Amino acid sequence: MNVSRPAALALVLGAALVPALALPAGKGPAPADPLPSWNDGPVKKGLLDFVTRATKKGGPDYVPPEERVATFDNDGTLWPEKPLPEAVFVAKRLKVLVRKHPSLLLREPIKAVLRGGVTHLRELGEQVVVDLLVTSHSGMTQEEFEADARAFFKGSRHPTLRRPYTELAYRPMVELLELLRANGFQTWMCTGGSVDFVRAISVPMYGIPPQQVIGTSLRKEPRLVGGRTVLWRLPTLLSYNNKGNKPVNIDLHVGRRPLFAAGNVRSAGDVEMLSYCQGRKGPSFQLVINHDDGEREFSYRERDDATLSAARKHGWTVVSMKRDWKVIFRPRGE
Amino acid sequence: MNVSRPAALALVLGAALVPALALPAGKGPAPADPLPSWNDGPVKKGLLDFVTRATKKGGPDYVPPEERVATFDNDGTLWPEKPLPEAVFVAKRLKVLVRKHPSLLLREPIKAVLRGGVTHLRELGEQVVVDLLVTSHSGMTQEEFEADARAFFKGSRHPTLRRPYTELAYRPMVELLELLRANGFQTWMCTGGSVDFVRAISVPMYGIPPQQVIGTSLRKEPRLVGGRTVLWRLPTLLSYNNKGNKPVNIDLHVGRRPLFAAGNVRSAGDVEMLSYCQGRKGPSFQLVINHDDGEREFSYRERDDATLSAARKHGWTVVSMKRDWKVIFRPRGE
Repeated sequence: MNVSRPAALALVLGAALVPALALPAGKGPAPADPLPSWNDGPVKKGLLDFVTRATKKGGPDYVPPEERVATFDNDGTLWPEKPLPEAVFVAKRLKVLVRKHPSLLLREPIKAVLRGGVTHLRELGEQVVVDLLVTSHSGMTQEEFEADARAFFKGSRHPTLRRPYTELAYRPMVELLELLRANGFQTWMCTGGSVDFVRAISVPMYGIPPQQVIGTSLRKEPRLVGGRTVLWRLPTLLSYNNKGNKPVNIDLHVGRRPLFAAGNVRSAGDVEMLSYCQGRKGPSFQLVINHDDGEREFSYRERDDATLSAARKHGWTVVSMKRDWKVIFRPRGE
Repeated sequence: MNVSRPAALALVLGAALVPALALPAGKGPAPADPLPSWNDGPVKKGLLDFVTRATKKGGPDYVPPEERVATFDNDGTLWPEKPLPEAVFVAKRLKVLVRKHPSLLLREPIKAVLRGGVTHLRELGEQVVVDLLVTSHSGMTQEEFEADARAFFKGSRHPTLRRPYTELAYRPMVELLELLRANGFQTWMCTGGSVDFVRAISVPMYGIPPQQVIGTSLRKEPRLVGGRTVLWRLPTLLSYNNKGNKPVNIDLHVGRRPLFAAGNVRSAGDVEMLSYCQGRKGPSFQLVINHDDGEREFSYRERDDATLSAARKHGWTVVSMKRDWKVIFRPRGE
């Protein structure tokens, strides 16, 4: 259930009290800053103003709680995507597969990936990556896959940041998720990554329950194994949750347009989701993360600048990680 | 958000208090019956005992709140399926289509349906019904379809029960949904009907929010219309949510096995969902509605008795509508 305690209490006491409880939520005499990892400036102010307006009962931009849906991309929006954690997992799974079926080692592109590593994977192009994901994530039960994903997150670290992937949530974005939930928003993930991979960490990293994760999915079928019904993962793509499929899958899972959507600059994968959010009747908010901080994270651009062009054209809010974020990750040992 | 007020309050006060608040929840000195429309007997007792055990902290069958997922079929489980309300809607939509494109009138099976009516529709077989659903529910935007579905529910009445479909929720089942939510369960619909049709009434009839409705779905694609992104409904089936597809779609939307599942006797459409629920590690509950009350509702059986055979074999709880339900519908005018 996606209800933080303040939000649940607010449900009981009446929606009118939500903003008073949550924004600002003072612990002492001075109201606490709900976004302490964000630097002051127009982006932070825009976010706080939007939440205040959407929750101000009787105000012109008031949105009832059931319509407060927020959707977040994951790779590059909530955690780093250089490399994609799931690409590392795919490469690991391929190694396991090759041990079982050595003849696979002779097959391209598996051969290339196992020789060239994860960096090479991306150069092979999107379609090949999706194909390899399908190959490496199928041929087992759903429960076996979930155990594998959990084991991966326990044992793996980012190659250059040298921390477990589970410690690499962007802290400003975690604060934003918490602020939205405290104000009655449902927070959803809408990721190009595979739904079952991300569900393994969505609660501890982001407070997003599995039923609010939308992602790339495989076909499955029920099978009876030892008298028990299990779901078998088939080597067929059901939906690659990217670009135009994002609004389609949001509609399938949520059944309404988001009030708030967040994506990032890299491959224009979030443009359709952001446009769909903006097409909502009434107020809405679109956030785009721009990776311009090579010192603390990574600095990269999109080949044709499609996301930033769309942001300029449609008035979406662009986050400069360098300018807008006081810290990027949770300090070590905290 | 799927949180009733008692459940939300319980979240705040701590999960240990949930059963005390909700079961029994006394208004006066004597504890109120949370299932007043159910006759006393083993079925009612079994339901109440299960909820008590699943929520008793420290007990052997305790289930943490995030795992309390309950999935309900709709047609024949939560409302009558003679005729299927959606079949009536399909026939209405076909009439509109034929007015626009008169040549369709010459095409079978459309010709047969428009001549023979909804009763005839079922005789044409399941595949034909699904095809007609796809034909009649596509070729428009998502928002146009939603408006059509809402208009249907405003204007249509059950042909023999002579009440609007929206007054025909089984009252004992609505009480059961409320009891489960009051005890921290997420209540989900998992219907063979189309997801966008049922979402039009899931909140007022059952208290189930749109994001907790899983159903039959069409493919859609985003299109730009007047500069605004809309979703266009394509004439292609994405998933017919029946039989083996029910557990697959529950996994896609919820990401875990249900703790509680309810279906009904007619076409064995819920057997796989109930088996999947029972395959959960730890406690679980399977409920099957048997339509044996020709006086107050309808009396019918399954051709090969597959659902009742499975219920006997696996120990599922079977509801006799005649024996177990004190009332079936909300009294008129209440």
